[in-house]
Amino acid sequence: MKTVEILVEALPYIKRFHGKKILIKYGGHAMIQEEAMDSTARDTVLLKYVGMEPIVVHGGGPEISRAMNKMGKEPKFIEGLRVTDEETMEIVKMVLVGKINTSIVSKICFHGGKGIGLSGKDSQLLLAKKKAPHIIKDEKTGEELEIDLGLVGEIESVNPEILEMLTSNGYIPIISPIGIDKNAETLNLNADTVAGEVAAKVGAEKLILLTDVPGILEDPNDPDTLIEKINISELDDLIKEGIIKGGMLPKALTCIQAIRDGVSSAHIIDGRIKHSLLLEIFTKKGIGTMITK
Amino acid sequence: MKTVEILVEALPYIKRFHGKKILIKYGGHAMIQEEAMDSTARDTVLLKYVGMEPIVVHGGGPEISRAMNKMGKEPKFIEGLRVTDEETMEIVKMVLVGKINTSIVSKICFHGGKGIGLSGKDSQLLLAKKKAPHIIKDEKTGEELEIDLGLVGEIESVNPEILEMLTSNGYIPIISPIGIDKNAETLNLNADTVAGEVAAKVGAEKLILLTDVPGILEDPNDPDTLIEKINISELDDLIKEGIIKGGMLPKALTCIQAIRDGVSSAHIIDGRIKHSLLLEIFTKKGIGTMITK
Amino acid sequence: MKTVEILVEALPYIKRFHGKKILIKYGGHAMIQEEAMDSTARDTVLLKYVGMEPIVVHGGGPEISRAMNKMGKEPKFIEGLRVTDEETMEIVKMVLVGKINTSIVSKICFHGGKGIGLSGKDSQLLLAKKKAPHIIKDEKTGEELEIDLGLVGEIESVNPEILEMLTSNGYIPIISPIGIDKNAETLNLNADTVAGEVAAKVGAEKLILLTDVPGILEDPNDPDTLIEKINISELDDLIKEGIIKGGMLPKALTCIQAIRDGVSSAHIIDGRIKHSLLLEIFTKKGIGTMITK
Amino acid sequence: MKTVEILVEALPYIKRFHGKKILIKYGGHAMIQEEAMDSTARDTVLLKYVGMEPIVVHGGGPEISRAMNKMGKEPKFIEGLRVTDEETMEIVKMVLVGKINTSIVSKICFHGGKGIGLSGKDSQLLLAKKKAPHIIKDEKTGEELEIDLGLVGEIESVNPEILEMLTSNGYIPIISPIGIDKNAETLNLNADTVAGEVAAKVGAEKLILLTDVPGILEDPNDPDTLIEKINISELDDLIKEGIIKGGMLPKALTCIQAIRDGVSSAHIIDGRIKHSLLLEIFTKKGIGTMITK
Amino acid sequence: MKTVEILVEALPYIKRFHGKKILIKYGGHAMIQEEAMDSTARDTVLLKYVGMEPIVVHGGGPEISRAMNKMGKEPKFIEGLRVTDEETMEIVKMVLVGKINTSIVSKICFHGGKGIGLSGKDSQLLLAKKKAPHIIKDEKTGEELEIDLGLVGEIESVNPEILEMLTSNGYIPIISPIGIDKNAETLNLNADTVAGEVAAKVGAEKLILLTDVPGILEDPNDPDTLIEKINISELDDLIKEGIIKGGMLPKALTCIQAIRDGVSSAHIIDGRIKHSLLLEIFTKKGIGTMITK
Amino acid sequence: MKTVEILVEALPYIKRFHGKKILIKYGGHAMIQEEAMDSTARDTVLLKYVGMEPIVVHGGGPEISRAMNKMGKEPKFIEGLRVTDEETMEIVKMVLVGKINTSIVSKICFHGGKGIGLSGKDSQLLLAKKKAPHIIKDEKTGEELEIDLGLVGEIESVNPEILEMLTSNGYIPIISPIGIDKNAETLNLNADTVAGEVAAKVGAEKLILLTDVPGILEDPNDPDTLIEKINISELDDLIKEGIIKGGMLPKALTCIQAIRDGVSSAHIIDGRIKHSLLLEIFTKKGIGTMITK
Repeated sequence: MKTVEILVEALPYIKRFHGKKILIKYGGHAMIQEEAMDSTARDTVLLKYVGMEPIVVHGGGPEISRAMNKMGKEPKFIEGLRVTDEETMEIVKMVLVGKINTSIVSKICFHGGKGIGLSGKDSQLLLAKKKAPHIIKDEKTGEELEIDLGLVGEIESVNPEILEMLTSNGYIPIISPIGIDKNAETLNLNADTVAGEVAAKVGAEKLILLTDVPGILEDPNDPDTLIEKINISELDDLIKEGIIKGGMLPKALTCIQAIRDGVSSAHIIDGRIKHSLLLEIFTKKGIGTMITK
Repeated sequence: MKTVEILVEALPYIKRFHGKKILIKYGGHAMIQEEAMDSTARDTVLLKYVGMEPIVVHGGGPEISRAMNKMGKEPKFIEGLRVTDEETMEIVKMVLVGKINTSIVSKICFHGGKGIGLSGKDSQLLLAKKKAPHIIKDEKTGEELEIDLGLVGEIESVNPEILEMLTSNGYIPIISPIGIDKNAETLNLNADTVAGEVAAKVGAEKLILLTDVPGILEDPNDPDTLIEKINISELDDLIKEGIIKGGMLPKALTCIQAIRDGVSSAHIIDGRIKHSLLLEIFTKKGIGTMITK
Repeated sequence: MKTVEILVEALPYIKRFHGKKILIKYGGHAMIQEEAMDSTARDTVLLKYVGMEPIVVHGGGPEISRAMNKMGKEPKFIEGLRVTDEETMEIVKMVLVGKINTSIVSKICFHGGKGIGLSGKDSQLLLAKKKAPHIIKDEKTGEELEIDLGLVGEIESVNPEILEMLTSNGYIPIISPIGIDKNAETLNLNADTVAGEVAAKVGAEKLILLTDVPGILEDPNDPDTLIEKINISELDDLIKEGIIKGGMLPKALTCIQAIRDGVSSAHIIDGRIKHSLLLEIFTKKGIGTMITK
Repeated sequence: MKTVEILVEALPYIKRFHGKKILIKYGGHAMIQEEAMDSTARDTVLLKYVGMEPIVVHGGGPEISRAMNKMGKEPKFIEGLRVTDEETMEIVKMVLVGKINTSIVSKICFHGGKGIGLSGKDSQLLLAKKKAPHIIKDEKTGEELEIDLGLVGEIESVNPEILEMLTSNGYIPIISPIGIDKNAETLNLNADTVAGEVAAKVGAEKLILLTDVPGILEDPNDPDTLIEKINISELDDLIKEGIIKGGMLPKALTCIQAIRDGVSSAHIIDGRIKHSLLLEIFTKKGIGTMITK
Repeated sequence: MKTVEILVEALPYIKRFHGKKILIKYGGHAMIQEEAMDSTARDTVLLKYVGMEPIVVHGGGPEISRAMNKMGKEPKFIEGLRVTDEETMEIVKMVLVGKINTSIVSKICFHGGKGIGLSGKDSQLLLAKKKAPHIIKDEKTGEELEIDLGLVGEIESVNPEILEMLTSNGYIPIISPIGIDKNAETLNLNADTVAGEVAAKVGAEKLILLTDVPGILEDPNDPDTLIEKINISELDDLIKEGIIKGGMLPKALTCIQAIRDGVSSAHIIDGRIKHSLLLEIFTKKGIGTMITK
Repeated sequence: MKTVEILVEALPYIKRFHGKKILIKYGGHAMIQEEAMDSTARDTVLLKYVGMEPIVVHGGGPEISRAMNKMGKEPKFIEGLRVTDEETMEIVKMVLVGKINTSIVSKICFHGGKGIGLSGKDSQLLLAKKKAPHIIKDEKTGEELEIDLGLVGEIESVNPEILEMLTSNGYIPIISPIGIDKNAETLNLNADTVAGEVAAKVGAEKLILLTDVPGILEDPNDPDTLIEKINISELDDLIKEGIIKGGMLPKALTCIQAIRDGVSSAHIIDGRIKHSLLLEIFTKKGIGTMITK
């Protein structure tokens, strides 16, 4: 009896998001832990079946480093950015496209969804260009040094044609954050940024980032300081005040940009909580942080 | 949290019935009592939103008699069958099409469904012919008497074109059990039969009859004798044995015929129970009686 | 031989109105008298078959009052406007949707048209809101009194989607002037106004009002003063001068508004004349009054 | 008033032939005489506008001979069959396609139809092969002689694709009886045969041959012996009895074959009578001879 | 081996012009000489098969004069313009539509293309009006004389609907330069102008004029003075300086106008060179003169 | 000049294979050597642009072994079959899907094709099941031993829906030979078999296997013994006679099966020869071995 009452309570959400595109970034725990990924995949299929159009983007940093270690190659980072030489790029592709993406596709299909794996190379979905060199300051001399990060790219344009065709024909696209430049060179992209830019390009209703934290916290060490709802100008202020920092900073910037580009709301939620995706969509309170215009 | 777990549990049912037509006969309490009708309408809209194709047929006997009384015309029945003269037919049309159907449409629309009211006259949806006279036996003399029931019809053919167009364009059709014969004469039809024949014609997955009893009971006076699942040959046997009788008999016959004509399952359920429609579709056990091949 | 010459003479009209929507308001005699309605229905079907897109709106005032009397409820009017309490509204729905609309559908279908009955409730075709109270002046005191007319509405918006789908698939929609407000409350609407607003919304070529008078008369008592053609600014002048009054006034205002909203011409014609509809469309002179920009 | 009554009388015919293909062979007077052709073209456009799908095939024997004479080339016939050398074929093409066909197209367009001229060469509409030599008997010696008629062909296959595309997009195709063989050689075809074979291939409802006689006459010299209606086995008998002969014989054979191939009825009518086409279609009695299964 | 290397070299051109409309004017040698026309037709079919959308317009001046002579009618020109009385117009139609157009269609079909012959009369493709009288100066007196050229027209509008339908369904349209005016009068049109105006109307990528000269020559008598590439303002200058004159002048003006109306490039090439059409499209250097914005 | 003559010579082949699906198995040299793969990709794009529908399947054995060695895992084979434990399967996926497939996609896109990478997991394109254990004979004892090859599968069904959607929308699918079983387990598949089964399922015209040998040789050591053309019953005989053996045997069996399942011809050609793909399709003689019914 409870069961159906809850179904009925979900109706307003189902109606509101009917036919709307929902861009979901799989990250952290939700992607590494087998059972969590299975559960997230099933939730994604549910969204499709009740009439929404989920599109998945996934990351994969830790897996890449693990694979590199296994292959006897040491991962190298400069100020948190992965230096990507050709050999590393090869490993990145293998792990993201060959391993993680295919796993997600398997799980989506297993739960009855028509999952299709894509990378930014497919039909030039993500046209990118090499990033400008990274500038670091020599702590001692104060000199600025240009560091070439190698095959790291930034998106120049998203080609939504293939996504439109797939979603309107009942498929769920799963995208690896790999770009291609004009000379067919492969480039490593930031998964959050890819999610944000794709969300904007396809006119998504929601951008949902699954992470390993409860959301945006005023004090990163105190989960009780979770910000449940914030608009982009308030969020901007928090950034300027230096309250948002570390790994949360690029995520916050991605959300702000996506909303400026027309996405209705962005959500940073805790992928470690079971069914966090559904909790965010189908309950009034939601979980994590909701960012709006 | 509970909420979303239940949603996830509903996924297998949502998948199984995705794109399938569900023929629902609104009857009894579920139609007379304002709040019950509202709840049933909302449940019907939910089915549409999660990907099924509900089609509604409604009855209305008690309302008709009430309206006739109000208009100073006494309802007349012979062995439970309404004798329908022209004046009665006029009242039947007004009550079914003008009152009950429009109420259902209102409620469906209010809950976000695109409801469209139809009668069998619309684009000759239900082509009918006058029923043969009813034969009764004079209890004293044993003589057989032919009683003309007037404008009472039986279906000759269902024209599904309009239903296909409406359902595939996102609408929920609501059908009054009024037929039309070749001379454009209006005929009174049995709502259960209409539901069964339409279900067969459109290739429905399920035929669900909402009633005021718990389902088929071995002993009509003992709700504990509910038959939860039965196949049509077993049901046939019960009929032959005289166990199924009274108002349940025509319903049972309708279900048997619908399944013979290709409907996957028929359900006789208690419309007085809130969300009985959803309980039947979204829970393993269901409620009421399920009839299968 | 005569036959085919006349067909050939009709060709220019058939060409000119090919694929154009023609909004026809059935009213007065053409709706009450059985044979007249049959003839009008057949003419409407003819229009469809020769390539036009007729859409019908019907009225029904006298029938409603008759039914109310039958049910022992006295019709109440204030300055010509029906006061509509809940019980009256119920009767209005039954008569318009259940009786008159179904009769028209029967006749349209009998003559080979694919008629579909609609009310403003179907898929919220006519979204309305309650009218502001009617102001009357106390003749003695000169005081202004607000009279609540009850469930009488005015159109807020017409949702043409269902009409486009039906006409482009070969159907002839027949619309009862019943509206629905945001709370699913049923409201009584003026049929002429409905015809005018629907005509404007669907981009009709013509709005044709079938009435019981020859058209607009300079002297209502002298049929010889028929105005055959008039533009809206001239008609406006006649209204200001008080020459148009009584029941003709709202019809004239409806025509003016429809033309301002883009309908090419409006026609007020005598539905008592057999085939008046066709005479208006297929002859150079036409009958009744033609109103143009 | 008369006008519209006649329109209404035409309704049953308009309904019956709605969306049906009508194959019309323009011949004799109806093609040679300017005014008659204009009238026939207008009637053809009328058929299109009231919902039928006319397809025109035209002949042109007399015009060809006239042009040949003008060019100083003497027409040559053997037992009524035109001997067609290359030079003659060139003239045939110029007259049929360049002169007659373009004239018909002009007139169809002038009356508001979207006429498109075609020959059997267009997209290989009429694939043909050279006819076997004609056998004649030497009257004196009784010897059989093979006479090569030159570029005279018989149809091997009709390619209806272009006709389906044109008719379903609102066009009226006008076909010259010119065929093409596998080597792109042009061949002269019999127009009646072309009309019959195209009618069969496109599944036409009617094949109408416009001629210069009242129809099939039992006595060719006595118009009072007109056969109004005949079935194909009766017609077969008349042929065997030698009653049908001369120019009527191939027409009769064409009609029989077309009906065997699925055309509902074939009509041989007098194109000299104004509006004969419409008289045949829109009146109960029709004119000329109707041939049925 | 050579073969496939060349195919691969053609790929960039095939890609660049994929799905683009190419308007080709068949003229001069390429139309008169049997083998040349065959080769040009095959090249045109090749363009279609590798993904372009060729549309052909043809001329026919010399053939017309030859036919007139044969029919004992002397061609008459005033300052190079054909005086076209009714009899001449008849011959023009017969030669262009009946002879030349059908020949091209035959050849296109023979090589596997779905050729369809059209004239400007078909569905009023080329709506024209009679040209204003031609003004000539009496050499002696200096007086200006108005010369009526008869049935010579200029294009008022091109109706591209039929061309869009044909090309998108796989057909290759072949157009005779015959126009029709509002009264269905046939008018003689300049083929180059028709090609240019159709190119502009359908948004062609290229306009290619096949001629009997190498292209635009600075000195008409010296093939070594060929201008390989020129933009329209430079070409305009050459015209003003009087360097472009004679038969080349109207061609040059047509090209300028087409480019002003949106065609990307115009080409005047030598149809006497085998495969000149393909050489122009598939080689970097091209042949003849290319005119660009 | 040569250029265009060759283009024209290709026309018959372009016509014959227009709209036909061509299944190409990339293998051996054509996949390993950078430049060779680039050239093959460009040739594949050319096929698409001239109207065929190429679908690519690729292999990758040597790359997999190389990657395993790099990761310190020794490849293990039993009678030429790779033993695939879970760790190996992970590497197989990474190499095939992450590395080889993305490289091919890059090259296809670089040359202007809309390449899309797929594995058998995408929308369950290749549903497979685990292979029965491999039986080997102990050379000494003569005992039969069952060897479990691990995650090696055989195809149960090909789901062509995604391929139809992609090819008809202008895409070139590139498929990795990875299957998925009913429990979402990943299985290693033989690439030649995948190519053959997909070819049969999509109704391909041709199956082309790119290899590192000239074709089927009667004497594997003597290239002069190349069999240019053979039908399947002759090939069957050669197999029975033991003439076909080693790596060629499974390829031959795949070709026979594909042709039995309706593929028109199968080709085993030398991918080391530049443009071998085009040479096979666009020249009369072809290269390698052609197998027909």
